[in-house]
Amino acid sequence: MEEHIVSCNTFDDQEDVAKLFAKYDIDVLPVVNNDNCLIGIITSDDIIDVMEAEVTEDIQKMAAIRPVEGSYLEASVFEMAKSRVPWLLILMLSATFTGMILQNFEDKLLIIPALTAFVPMIMGSSGNAGNQSAVMVIRSMAINEITMKDFLKVLFKELQIAVICGAALFAVAMIRILIFPPHVTLEIALIISATLFLSVVISKLLGAGLPFVSLVFKQDPAATTTPVLTTIIDVVALLIYFQLCVIFLGL
Amino acid sequence: MEEHIVSCNTFDDQEDVAKLFAKYDIDVLPVVNNDNCLIGIITSDDIIDVMEAEVTEDIQKMAAIRPVEGSYLEASVFEMAKSRVPWLLILMLSATFTGMILQNFEDKLLIIPALTAFVPMIMGSSGNAGNQSAVMVIRSMAINEITMKDFLKVLFKELQIAVICGAALFAVAMIRILIFPPHVTLEIALIISATLFLSVVISKLLGAGLPFVSLVFKQDPAATTTPVLTTIIDVVALLIYFQLCVIFLGL
Repeated sequence: MEEHIVSCNTFDDQEDVAKLFAKYDIDVLPVVNNDNCLIGIITSDDIIDVMEAEVTEDIQKMAAIRPVEGSYLEASVFEMAKSRVPWLLILMLSATFTGMILQNFEDKLLIIPALTAFVPMIMGSSGNAGNQSAVMVIRSMAINEITMKDFLKVLFKELQIAVICGAALFAVAMIRILIFPPHVTLEIALIISATLFLSVVISKLLGAGLPFVSLVFKQDPAATTTPVLTTIIDVVALLIYFQLCVIFLGL
Repeated sequence: MEEHIVSCNTFDDQEDVAKLFAKYDIDVLPVVNNDNCLIGIITSDDIIDVMEAEVTEDIQKMAAIRPVEGSYLEASVFEMAKSRVPWLLILMLSATFTGMILQNFEDKLLIIPALTAFVPMIMGSSGNAGNQSAVMVIRSMAINEITMKDFLKVLFKELQIAVICGAALFAVAMIRILIFPPHVTLEIALIISATLFLSVVISKLLGAGLPFVSLVFKQDPAATTTPVLTTIIDVVALLIYFQLCVIFLGL
């Protein structure tokens, strides 16, 4: 007699049930109640629809959208707006921090105005780098490829990837800055490229680490990581940039 | 006799086959060769693994990552870096445009330095708004909820959503700017908030429209839209901001 039978409980979350199907490659899953009595079955074609809906939800969360019920064309304009406004407002307000850093450094930016021109490049690259790591980790968590115990392994892997990515950006940035306007001194070019390297490394570690922090607090990594990450990375990247400017340009 | 039988060809893409399963809620799909002879079947549990892999690929593409084969822990550090560096470099170089706009406006920013402090807020909010729309449309395309014929319907829907989101941002930005530093005149607060409104509306239309452009050129919307979008939006948002400053502040 088969003793270990894969089954699910009536109260199990549909996402967890879908994971069982992916894990065990089964066609049919028995559903049991709390007394372990069989009360129904789920077939894998039911699960395909569930998976589709769950993935849509995850993708929306990662794009700073609260999950919307129903299909794109069915959902009302008002519902859609309601699902998008909260994060837009939160992220707009959190840009206050970046604004404050820029403002504090304002009088120094007046001395070498070309420094401002590189702010979008630095903030953008760091944001992209961090987002790449976060999305890789969040997706791997969603399909159970990564769990809490892989934390250090993931962080070390991202560190290595980050150093390679950072080095590539450093090299290409040096060439780009020295060839195209705005023209700056070799020293400033080095500061900008070094900022890119450092902020890419830190952003990737933050992007890989934050989903684990979400897990610790029993939050959904998809919903909490990506929006929060951007704000933190923007602040960190600017602080590195201006700190290097202060140290090496004596501003 | 059943005349219309759903089936797939040996040369069909696995993503298209998965869509058939989701659409018809079937357990088994016959596979036929070019002579319409049955040569095998696919069961829905096979499709679950295919769907998982395809979705992972789409999510990676949207995060400016070239799809990586194998699981996160299996893929080598070098493979991972190789899948991330190209877009990081492209996006870094494309930030040159934003830098050029900032540089052109530099002497004017020197007159009212507080204007610089709001640049991250404007670029960030526009980027988030556009990304929300792009991700919604791309995902709906992936699960066949939206096709080319829905172009105008989608654009009109996004326009309405954008006006609501833009209005919310306008209102909250006005309050935020007038209460918190850096302190600016009412006129500048109005310019910043109006920039937010306009750039959110345009970004959402761009975000919703670009996936259709990808379709026209037979490109994968997930792979082409999101990275390109950010660069375009950054440029558009800055141009709106500085243009309004020139018109209303006489800079």
